[in-house]
Amino acid sequence: MIPTRCASSGFFVEICAMPHISQRGQAMPASPIRKLVPFAEMAEQQGKKVHYLNIGQPDIPSPAGAMDALRHHDVKILAYSHSAGFISYRKKLVDYYSKHGIHITAQDMIVTTGGSEALAMAMGAILDPGDEIIIPEPYYANYLGFATASGAVVIPVVSSIESGFELPSMSEIESLITPKTRALLLCNPGNPTGKLYTKKELAQVRKIALKHDLFIIADEVYREFTYDRLKHTSVMSLEGMEEHAVLIDSVSKRYSMCGARIGLLASKNESFMSSAMRFAQARLSPPTFEQIAAEAALETPDAYFKEVNVEYTKRRDYLIGRLNAMDGVFCPKPSGAFYCMAQLPVENSDHFCQWMLESFDHEGNTVMMAPAGGFYTDSSLGAQQVRLAYVLDVQDLKVAMDALEVGLQVYPYRLA
Amino acid sequence: MIPTRCASSGFFVEICAMPHISQRGQAMPASPIRKLVPFAEMAEQQGKKVHYLNIGQPDIPSPAGAMDALRHHDVKILAYSHSAGFISYRKKLVDYYSKHGIHITAQDMIVTTGGSEALAMAMGAILDPGDEIIIPEPYYANYLGFATASGAVVIPVVSSIESGFELPSMSEIESLITPKTRALLLCNPGNPTGKLYTKKELAQVRKIALKHDLFIIADEVYREFTYDRLKHTSVMSLEGMEEHAVLIDSVSKRYSMCGARIGLLASKNESFMSSAMRFAQARLSPPTFEQIAAEAALETPDAYFKEVNVEYTKRRDYLIGRLNAMDGVFCPKPSGAFYCMAQLPVENSDHFCQWMLESFDHEGNTVMMAPAGGFYTDSSLGAQQVRLAYVLDVQDLKVAMDALEVGLQVYPYRLA
Repeated sequence: MIPTRCASSGFFVEICAMPHISQRGQAMPASPIRKLVPFAEMAEQQGKKVHYLNIGQPDIPSPAGAMDALRHHDVKILAYSHSAGFISYRKKLVDYYSKHGIHITAQDMIVTTGGSEALAMAMGAILDPGDEIIIPEPYYANYLGFATASGAVVIPVVSSIESGFELPSMSEIESLITPKTRALLLCNPGNPTGKLYTKKELAQVRKIALKHDLFIIADEVYREFTYDRLKHTSVMSLEGMEEHAVLIDSVSKRYSMCGARIGLLASKNESFMSSAMRFAQARLSPPTFEQIAAEAALETPDAYFKEVNVEYTKRRDYLIGRLNAMDGVFCPKPSGAFYCMAQLPVENSDHFCQWMLESFDHEGNTVMMAPAGGFYTDSSLGAQQVRLAYVLDVQDLKVAMDALEVGLQVYPYRLA
Repeated sequence: MIPTRCASSGFFVEICAMPHISQRGQAMPASPIRKLVPFAEMAEQQGKKVHYLNIGQPDIPSPAGAMDALRHHDVKILAYSHSAGFISYRKKLVDYYSKHGIHITAQDMIVTTGGSEALAMAMGAILDPGDEIIIPEPYYANYLGFATASGAVVIPVVSSIESGFELPSMSEIESLITPKTRALLLCNPGNPTGKLYTKKELAQVRKIALKHDLFIIADEVYREFTYDRLKHTSVMSLEGMEEHAVLIDSVSKRYSMCGARIGLLASKNESFMSSAMRFAQARLSPPTFEQIAAEAALETPDAYFKEVNVEYTKRRDYLIGRLNAMDGVFCPKPSGAFYCMAQLPVENSDHFCQWMLESFDHEGNTVMMAPAGGFYTDSSLGAQQVRLAYVLDVQDLKVAMDALEVGLQVYPYRLA
């Protein structure tokens, strides 16, 4: 018998050098938010103060009640919980959602390990390999990650920075619908755009869902973060969408508890939930301690959110003011979440962001931003844009904006 | 324009009734361990005492040090951790693994949300939709769940109860290898079999991996649970397997911390790890509090494991003794984990297990077991078998075995 052909090297050998990584494993995108980390580490080693505006990790303390709940736990055997999560927690969530105009029962919910797992389960239950999901772009980069992981195809529809990332028109979206289209995914309020969809835009979403029989997967983890007295409208509250609406949620941003990894998947569609529940059973249960914290977080007083809102409004106004005052910069005012997308007078924001860390400082300060290419399927669409998260206080933002302003002036590849 | 054809109903309607669930979402298996839960609940409502031998949830207290660590946490902002998990935890794990003959660095590890996520990431990085993974059966039912979720195909190879679930022969395994085969998945010690593979069996695994260029995914979460002075050998410790061996691990069973959902994915194969890392980045990070508990658990004194081992040995000996003394029952003696598979004189263990809950009690007691059909790809192969987890103390096991013994005597569909 001749020796085996090595799938890696292509040679016939007795012992193969290396087994294969899957195509999807190769296609998995690197995080655009985290990929500049080595340059930031280098900048810090050089003694620079790096202001991190690249990642949605708020500096707001988590609610004291939630953190205290863990200090007083009485767990002796850290056992599996229900695959859908604590029933006590889900029952309390019924009230929380009801206050936000979302009327669901504890049976309509699965507690997940972060919004991430809710997304992965939703895609698993809706999309087969090769199926298509339409997403307005720029979009949260990990949507592409989860779609790639499940073998599905993201079909982007561009929303423009000039319009403040308005929902693309009915006809633009409809022109992308094929027999393989299964769902439309919306982030509202939007990461990375900060866009809060209007009732009119959501009416259009509803029309598309019902007309074309599509699921609407609504990522509403920034629900509490709306400004200028605008109110968030949930896809779950739209009339006649019981079979079509799927809610992705998380405590990460709401309570500044990103590390809890407690999210939620909810829908009134019973066959969807029954399928999602089998994905949930396969991974057994969400983490126990973090559910204790999340359940306690529900007691957080309204004053917490008011304070947070005042703080973020101040930061947003300051950041947007500074950005738009810079020569050649344009940044639409976000009405939700805590991100903004800025158009910079540079050819390639990947290079500019790296340069800011590698080759620049202003009085010892520099800024880490997320180049926007990773938020677009065709990364060239974001080549002049960056995402900034206003997760630092105004004093830090001032130093960061001073550095960015000078950086843009002296950047050797600045566009005229 | 005519109205849209509704994909669910097939009719032309203005508003469609319902969007579709994916084929994989429909194919996701229900948990064989949890599917009898409604009958158990009913039995309890009828006042019966149900002895739960169906699920691998130990009754052993989690290490006090790990539980205390949470009581003294000083987390103010519950932030994202590194996508690969706390570096402090990974560095300590280097020592833990080294004691078990597994020589890996902190860079060879990704802390995952349970062994479940480690499995999902490993399959994602190795298998494309349609690719094949060979698994000796009976196997942990959720392997099928994760393979289905990732669109891959499980190719089972039967290990027989008569042989004590020995690894199938080289030629049997090789006869199943096709151009689509990417990996062999082993659970060692085995769930549901309790089988601890010998060095000879592992040498065969190594030969197959190197000859056919396959990944070996080794689920070794029961490493500490070996009996009769037998020692566990890790696939990671086999010579020349650096590029082929992938380790799945978890704190769930080791420290009786199933609810922590802290697992580990490890390999010396850099391209595998770099791909897995992108899956890890997409879901951001494992839960923070549970990592604190898992890191503290590493300080658990050896006495804890010795006590646990003594306890499980006692339970195993009692359980196996009782089972094999029952007329028509055969149960090979497991050398690892805390499960055994028993062959019963019944035609359909699904029905028998349901009947035990629904229609039987012995002095108010009954037993919940896991019918073994769900541990086989062709469920008929497990029709006469059940899995029992010896996660109760000997006193409870006695009452449970008394009930099972009488149940088997009076079961109307008992085989002669």
